[in-house]
Amino acid sequence: MRARLSGSVAALAATMLAGVLGTAPAVADDLATLAARVQVLEDREDIRALILAYGQAHDHRDYRTFASLFAANGEWIGGLGTAKGPDAIFALMDKSIGHNPLPNGSGTFHVMTNDQIKIDGDRASSTTKWLYITAAEDNSPKLTYLSHYDDAFVRENGRWRFLKRQSVSDISPLRR
Amino acid sequence: MRARLSGSVAALAATMLAGVLGTAPAVADDLATLAARVQVLEDREDIRALILAYGQAHDHRDYRTFASLFAANGEWIGGLGTAKGPDAIFALMDKSIGHNPLPNGSGTFHVMTNDQIKIDGDRASSTTKWLYITAAEDNSPKLTYLSHYDDAFVRENGRWRFLKRQSVSDISPLRR
Amino acid sequence: MRARLSGSVAALAATMLAGVLGTAPAVADDLATLAARVQVLEDREDIRALILAYGQAHDHRDYRTFASLFAANGEWIGGLGTAKGPDAIFALMDKSIGHNPLPNGSGTFHVMTNDQIKIDGDRASSTTKWLYITAAEDNSPKLTYLSHYDDAFVRENGRWRFLKRQSVSDISPLRR
Repeated sequence: MRARLSGSVAALAATMLAGVLGTAPAVADDLATLAARVQVLEDREDIRALILAYGQAHDHRDYRTFASLFAANGEWIGGLGTAKGPDAIFALMDKSIGHNPLPNGSGTFHVMTNDQIKIDGDRASSTTKWLYITAAEDNSPKLTYLSHYDDAFVRENGRWRFLKRQSVSDISPLRR
Repeated sequence: MRARLSGSVAALAATMLAGVLGTAPAVADDLATLAARVQVLEDREDIRALILAYGQAHDHRDYRTFASLFAANGEWIGGLGTAKGPDAIFALMDKSIGHNPLPNGSGTFHVMTNDQIKIDGDRASSTTKWLYITAAEDNSPKLTYLSHYDDAFVRENGRWRFLKRQSVSDISPLRR
Repeated sequence: MRARLSGSVAALAATMLAGVLGTAPAVADDLATLAARVQVLEDREDIRALILAYGQAHDHRDYRTFASLFAANGEWIGGLGTAKGPDAIFALMDKSIGHNPLPNGSGTFHVMTNDQIKIDGDRASSTTKWLYITAAEDNSPKLTYLSHYDDAFVRENGRWRFLKRQSVSDISPLRR
């Protein structure tokens, strides 16, 4: 009787297990797929935060922080010149603008907008518009430049960094 | 002895299975619920990308791409008139502005911002502000219009498309 | 024979169960971890929507809605004064600007941008730039102020609300 019962329980168990075993790896696979999709969403937000951190560091004249947002071999290309690597990027900014951290800001503003970020694993790219706003003579805000950044990003030591950031002037009284 | 052992193992197996079977479908349900939440987050990003692709196509005078962002029965309503379907939308833009793709841009800019997107399955809606920025006489950027789009979106063949896009002028020297 | 069979099936079942039982709790843990990550992504979008709802209520002169976006002990701090709690915030706005809901807008615009939102469980913080745009004499859009909000948020009754919103003027012809 016990053997019979154990036999039918075991047979039932085997049948049920087939269902569970068919489900569990599928669930694990689905979970991995979903986790990869969540990662892409998080990556986009991390890159948005990187772009805003850049603007904030620029406006706060904090070029140590600014330079730290670039990958070890990250490049900055713009109206002030070209530099590769955080040290060279810091040096370029320090020479051109001056490292003078102002926690409450410098009174000039990089407004970043319309980021078109594309994620591809540990690399990403984007085009992002930026408006440079300063104070006019009557102290009202003035659109000074409209430009965009062409960006390449890399995930380096688990954090997104600029691999290449090129500023391209679109509307500017200083026609380049 | 073997029967006894197998009996207790089977009983244990049955008990354990009850736990696993109670967990596995719950896990699968939770996974499906979570996947639906992730889908909504992805939908919002896809719609943001659609809105930016529209602005880019407009500024690049690429009205083939522009028209392709509308659903088969998608409508465009604005200061230039009204058109329904990609062919008619292309024709309206071609007649009004001219199809003249400029990969580096036309020098005029649609800045999209403040998207208030609501997702409801395969439909969505949004109100999105847009600033139209052009070059002033001294070649500094000038705010030319502030308007907003009232949008309806539809998921068509797995991609989000404009079902209805109405441009409403908010501040404009051309008072309509 | 049956006992033998049941014995080996049961043994197999036990082995298989070990695998499944090893997987199922791990899957449930992974699922909970992933759900928490999705929650953070949703929280950020909910907070973005809150920030935009505030701007819309302001521009629509709908200060009942405006005040309802604050937590029970939420504070508003800005050029018009300081108030704590929805009733006091409504009273301050009503006294200063007037409650006069205009569903099509007032013709003045709060453009919110560059939100740097950080989520920490049921609390969050952000710095968000805002541009105030009004009509110039020739009816073209004019940048009137550039400011930012320093925000603290709280999840209250399952919804994100402003716990403290401080408006800080950055560029303004009304130098404060």
